Amino acid sequence: MTHPRRIPKSKLVEYKKLLQKKYRRVQRQFVIEGVHLVEEALASDWDCEALLVSENFLTKNVFPAIADRAAARHVMLYEASDRELETLTDTVTSQGIVGIVNEKSYDAGNLLNLPSRRSLIIALDDIADPGNLGAIVRTCDWFGTDALVLSEDTVELYNPKVIRATMGSMFHMPIVTAIDLEGFLASAKRCGFTILAAVPGGESVLDFGPIPDRAVVVFGNEAHGIHENVLRLASATIAIPRFGKAESLNVAVSAAAVLTALRLRRP
Amino acid sequence: MTHPRRIPKSKLVEYKKLLQKKYRRVQRQFVIEGVHLVEEALASDWDCEALLVSENFLTKNVFPAIADRAAARHVMLYEASDRELETLTDTVTSQGIVGIVNEKSYDAGNLLNLPSRRSLIIALDDIADPGNLGAIVRTCDWFGTDALVLSEDTVELYNPKVIRATMGSMFHMPIVTAIDLEGFLASAKRCGFTILAAVPGGESVLDFGPIPDRAVVVFGNEAHGIHENVLRLASATIAIPRFGKAESLNVAVSAAAVLTALRLRRP
Repeated sequence: MTHPRRIPKSKLVEYKKLLQKKYRRVQRQFVIEGVHLVEEALASDWDCEALLVSENFLTKNVFPAIADRAAARHVMLYEASDRELETLTDTVTSQGIVGIVNEKSYDAGNLLNLPSRRSLIIALDDIADPGNLGAIVRTCDWFGTDALVLSEDTVELYNPKVIRATMGSMFHMPIVTAIDLEGFLASAKRCGFTILAAVPGGESVLDFGPIPDRAVVVFGNEAHGIHENVLRLASATIAIPRFGKAESLNVAVSAAAVLTALRLRRP
Repeated sequence: MTHPRRIPKSKLVEYKKLLQKKYRRVQRQFVIEGVHLVEEALASDWDCEALLVSENFLTKNVFPAIADRAAARHVMLYEASDRELETLTDTVTSQGIVGIVNEKSYDAGNLLNLPSRRSLIIALDDIADPGNLGAIVRTCDWFGTDALVLSEDTVELYNPKVIRATMGSMFHMPIVTAIDLEGFLASAKRCGFTILAAVPGGESVLDFGPIPDRAVVVFGNEAHGIHENVLRLASATIAIPRFGKAESLNVAVSAAAVLTALRLRRP
């Protein structure tokens, strides 16, 4: 294996800008950090532009397989110092490997026209907390949700905190970002999807009538819930029944509870 | 209503120390911030030593009810500047109200000898992340879990991040802290409890045989799971079946999924 070339200063300057949302948006690229995320990205159908590794990382056991995989996928491999790698991320200690990944766009229309009779899509309306979005992505992936759609005002998927919290699950399923949720739900209804809105006081997911074969379940903002104009499009409201005294559930926890109940009732 | 007295400098110095875990441990006190947590504490059977409010807070609509409640419970009421309040907490902007609460100890033995035939206790083995612990407390409260027990190496319940994430649920149910988990589980078994360990690859909670009337469900550390010596005491292992590709679930999400499944199967 040849020693990777030193990263040119100009490239480093370019990639450093990806710490800022506005540049991510312009470049349609984002940064991932650490072995696990890089391996997940390389194993997925997402397109990686470059990998940057520290000198120390070159000696690690995991490196040869990653380098082979990167070469097979025509991903540029650069060497950079730990200090340089740290300037590309919001974490304090370099993990020795960073990837530059190109955004992947999914077409919302395709999600609604899948040949499968059964389909479960999760839609998020204005989720604000990066940790919550990441946990929901991971949870949807665990429960084999067919797709996830994110409203325009939901926190950016490519935010480094979101990416870390997804634990690689963002590379496992279609996620449509910055969607006009009202328009999407209206189309979904026309395609035979039932829109279920998760709201406090909704009908218990444990008792709720037959689970529709094709459903979109909507979860709303941590503080304000689902917007009125989105809620209007729901065929029914659902909720996790409360057995104790808590006023509310965290939205990622709520999504997990709903998905468990749906899976339990429609395995 | 009389104007509250200015907080003496010596008191402020004393309370400021509660930002540090070692002083919380010595003083057996902790700090809560914001209207919601203060209201929850005052409505609970936890003992509040003092409330500190900003001058601006005195003019708020919620203040008179809080002051009455505090007076009825013999809680000292002090006025402090926003800057002083900020020195008592790890948040940047003062919410105008802070409470000093005394730790409440629950006896683990009592939890096991409740008269109710049915009892569900959640035990946490070495949970490291404050946000996860807080979310689990809130989730257990929502699902009406009878009690929560925390191993010695679990993150401190009185950590400000944990307290915030509980959203007041920590005041709603018995939580036994810094417990010898092995000893507790051995006692629980003798009292007729079934110990269920949540581990990857455990038996599906959806298919698992009859749900025991008295059970302790154990969740382990985010990275390393349940310690071997604790796992040995389990009668069975349980898991949330995976339908997709994620490698694991966040532990708070996992607790929510298990509690949903248990409630769904034993309402």
